[in-house]
Amino acid sequence: MSNHDLTCKHKMARQNGIVQPLLTDLYQITMAYAYWKSGKVNDVAVFDLFFRNNPFQGEFTIFAGLEECLKFLQNFHYSDSDIEYLMQTLPGNIEPEFFAYLKDLTCKDIKLSAIEEGSVVFPRVPLLRVEGPLIIAQLLETTLLTLVNFASLMATNAARYRMVAGKNVSLLEFGLRRAQGPDGGLSASKYAYIGGFDGTSNVLAGKMFNIPVKGTHAHSFVTSFSTLDDIHSVILRHAETQEPCNLLDLATEWRNRVSSVIDISPEEASDGELAALISYAIAFPTGFLALVDTSGLLNFCAVALALNDCGYRAVGIRIDSGDLAYLSVLARETFEQIAEAFKLPWFSKLTIVASNDINEDTILSLNEQGHKIDCFGIGTHLVTCQRQPALGCVYKLVEINGQPRIKLSQDVGKVTIPGHKEAYRLFGADGHALIDLLQRSSEPAPGVGQKVLCRHPFQESKRAYVIPSKVEHLYKVYWKDGRVCIQPKPLLEVRERVQSSLRTLRQDIKRNLNPTPYKVAVSDDLYNFIHDLWLQNAPIGELS
Amino acid sequence: MSNHDLTCKHKMARQNGIVQPLLTDLYQITMAYAYWKSGKVNDVAVFDLFFRNNPFQGEFTIFAGLEECLKFLQNFHYSDSDIEYLMQTLPGNIEPEFFAYLKDLTCKDIKLSAIEEGSVVFPRVPLLRVEGPLIIAQLLETTLLTLVNFASLMATNAARYRMVAGKNVSLLEFGLRRAQGPDGGLSASKYAYIGGFDGTSNVLAGKMFNIPVKGTHAHSFVTSFSTLDDIHSVILRHAETQEPCNLLDLATEWRNRVSSVIDISPEEASDGELAALISYAIAFPTGFLALVDTSGLLNFCAVALALNDCGYRAVGIRIDSGDLAYLSVLARETFEQIAEAFKLPWFSKLTIVASNDINEDTILSLNEQGHKIDCFGIGTHLVTCQRQPALGCVYKLVEINGQPRIKLSQDVGKVTIPGHKEAYRLFGADGHALIDLLQRSSEPAPGVGQKVLCRHPFQESKRAYVIPSKVEHLYKVYWKDGRVCIQPKPLLEVRERVQSSLRTLRQDIKRNLNPTPYKVAVSDDLYNFIHDLWLQNAPIGELS
Repeated sequence: MSNHDLTCKHKMARQNGIVQPLLTDLYQITMAYAYWKSGKVNDVAVFDLFFRNNPFQGEFTIFAGLEECLKFLQNFHYSDSDIEYLMQTLPGNIEPEFFAYLKDLTCKDIKLSAIEEGSVVFPRVPLLRVEGPLIIAQLLETTLLTLVNFASLMATNAARYRMVAGKNVSLLEFGLRRAQGPDGGLSASKYAYIGGFDGTSNVLAGKMFNIPVKGTHAHSFVTSFSTLDDIHSVILRHAETQEPCNLLDLATEWRNRVSSVIDISPEEASDGELAALISYAIAFPTGFLALVDTSGLLNFCAVALALNDCGYRAVGIRIDSGDLAYLSVLARETFEQIAEAFKLPWFSKLTIVASNDINEDTILSLNEQGHKIDCFGIGTHLVTCQRQPALGCVYKLVEINGQPRIKLSQDVGKVTIPGHKEAYRLFGADGHALIDLLQRSSEPAPGVGQKVLCRHPFQESKRAYVIPSKVEHLYKVYWKDGRVCIQPKPLLEVRERVQSSLRTLRQDIKRNLNPTPYKVAVSDDLYNFIHDLWLQNAPIGELS
Repeated sequence: MSNHDLTCKHKMARQNGIVQPLLTDLYQITMAYAYWKSGKVNDVAVFDLFFRNNPFQGEFTIFAGLEECLKFLQNFHYSDSDIEYLMQTLPGNIEPEFFAYLKDLTCKDIKLSAIEEGSVVFPRVPLLRVEGPLIIAQLLETTLLTLVNFASLMATNAARYRMVAGKNVSLLEFGLRRAQGPDGGLSASKYAYIGGFDGTSNVLAGKMFNIPVKGTHAHSFVTSFSTLDDIHSVILRHAETQEPCNLLDLATEWRNRVSSVIDISPEEASDGELAALISYAIAFPTGFLALVDTSGLLNFCAVALALNDCGYRAVGIRIDSGDLAYLSVLARETFEQIAEAFKLPWFSKLTIVASNDINEDTILSLNEQGHKIDCFGIGTHLVTCQRQPALGCVYKLVEINGQPRIKLSQDVGKVTIPGHKEAYRLFGADGHALIDLLQRSSEPAPGVGQKVLCRHPFQESKRAYVIPSKVEHLYKVYWKDGRVCIQPKPLLEVRERVQSSLRTLRQDIKRNLNPTPYKVAVSDDLYNFIHDLWLQNAPIGELS
């Protein structure tokens, strides 16, 4: 069976297990019944799925989760046991015909338009537009939100880590043990990779999504060895000559030689640790990357040099405690001293991995201190999105039977933009995105080189003319007539899309501290449409 | 098929899909190979799974996730495709016999002891003790951590909400759309229920775990109606007489009568909203609970009184925006005025549900303001555990081949307590738990009425004598010889265990602000054992 077959098989097992129509809030089903009972079976609705604020005090978001949404639409079906459960759970006076209606429901009459997965997106611009029978479109709400909210939040978080870490540092996701359970961990691995991470420690995520998996050993491996007697075999065959080499003798000898170069005495180094490292090196001579603390540097260098005698080059070390900036600099200096002393230039380039409660701010601080880390392993803060653990996507009715709907609120930020709309991204001559523009679908698309009046949706005086050098229509139809119209791109392409999409954003919008907000505007026509509707719908209060 | 059969079937589908040996960090498998290669196949290890700090700035934690851990042990098996994937993923020079070894691995030689699920637990006291072959015990680490960490965090969070809300208020979990994906949402529903919530909006969680599901309608239901013409049918049959009642006529009439009593003019009430509420009432005459804003109160009361004319009692309202304390008081006063004016005493007792970004502090603040809310619907803050999105359980090697292991750290909080241990909870005469005591397994259990010296594990001078009135041995063997020895309790019993276990804690330990720490001690014997081992293992540094 090919790796791709395996991937599909396992994806499907997962999908079928959990993502199903009952993965929803009960009120969707009670509303469905009330709609059904009110004769609204043929009502046609348009819902927008969007968020109101960028996460992490940033000014951009990465849209992800579309592929999972399409699978959900494809598999949407109430099983017999689902219907049986609903009959037990809903009040006894529900008409039986409603359950027959549910039983036959599919998404064949739904049309789903979306922004491309992996794109940079902004508040108020719908990520998904769902059109079709009111009842079915309503029944999709919670599941679509669940699939988009966490995926987009994770991808955005990962992209932010990638930006602060820079292009030349590897990023590995190590968060499974702290994620929201098994599937939370899998989603975290997947969307961290999409957002720009290089790999994960999560083996099942590797298998399911074909993501590179990485890992070395834990501290318990070291503590399971006490003395040099715990080494089972000390023999490693030379990489080329196949001559047996005694790795223990070599490492012991090197430990003495190295200790004079790097000023750590062999007494400070633990024999149990040396035994562990030798055993690990014999198991993984081509992939020797060892977890060490300060005193462990001597043992590591000794084993790495012994491996070199056997024709293998060590990979490097992982530091998991202490002052990561200081320790990485110390380790790099040590490697350089050894490279110089023993004429092994490659030794100075050994990989230094750092883990231990790393977040965006830690990386920024390490950058300032001039660390020498090649790779960060990031867990808790990444997968729980500790800085903001939820993206607040909402799903709002904007049109019914061709009539626009507006949700009013005393909080102007919560007023929805009504009607069936299109979204365009307008680019400047230098290739950067200038503004996202929402228009009524009946309006002609903005033209390249033509002056477009862009208005703030709610502040009358905020207006600007824009002459775009390029116009991108943000929506494509991904699902129609019961079929996926555009196949979702493979993970790797979505991952590339994230980086190419981010490159179109000016640096000041992406920066960590006080970023400049990106503008989202409405056309003059849509502005007037919103405000006319607002006045029609808002009751005139009475001061008393 | 019975409901229980359905539940089991769906649990299993989920379990088999995701919780499997590959749901782990790669380093567990590389370590397994290094152990195997080092001849450690017959080494026997003891690992403790514990956390170091209570979450949410509290002084207690609820232990949950044990049932899932047992299922994981039961199903532990590398499939052919797992092995194939590992062969592709690990370095090419891995000996093929290792894969044959993995292929046959099961948990039959593992012994798992644990504290009862749903118990109050404290830092440093192991929740799980895993004994058995080093390699297998090591391979379980990440998955056990994943299953315990989020489950315990959620159950603890839910229990804290329950405490601040008090016994007489219902708590509903509404968080699916903001959870870490589908399974994050299911776990949140399950462990919120265990922690003391009364139900969830998540229908699949209801079906899988037999949790009560609750829900009404969303704002979009109201906005989908524009005018009174949108009502499909206005007829509801009387609950007893079966006479047809015209709910629209009745509600319109009541709207005029009520408006004079509660001082909201009918012009302020929206006809679209009235149409929506009438339609909802006709669909759910026995379960009429409506989402309303301030002006919606008039429409709600009109429909509720119309329903009363048809022999049905409305359930109540949900408030989802604005000042919840003020609005709940206003709504209660309105209900009381109507009860008085129309001689309908039950009307004053209508249920008031509040939702909208509620957290522990919001509830405390509402309590201070004297709210009139009967039920909270809680989403984002509950399911993401926003205040602290991860519990830091760790899994540490404490003994190998009968020899104790200690992990030293410059941070004394990270030093592990070595050896095979037992844990006892000592109770005072008033029934409250006094202290948790860790002992070496070779020591006799502390006796009721006997003086026990309890020592702080690391601070020499902190000691106390305790004379327990009751002693509870905290560990039971749940898994041995390849079988579950004690069947995990049904969800409802675990949920009751949480409350009974919390009742044994003094109030000052449970309070929200500046709680008193509960004491965890070691026996004198264990104290000396730790410190002797520490001195043997800690290198003597050099000041320079």
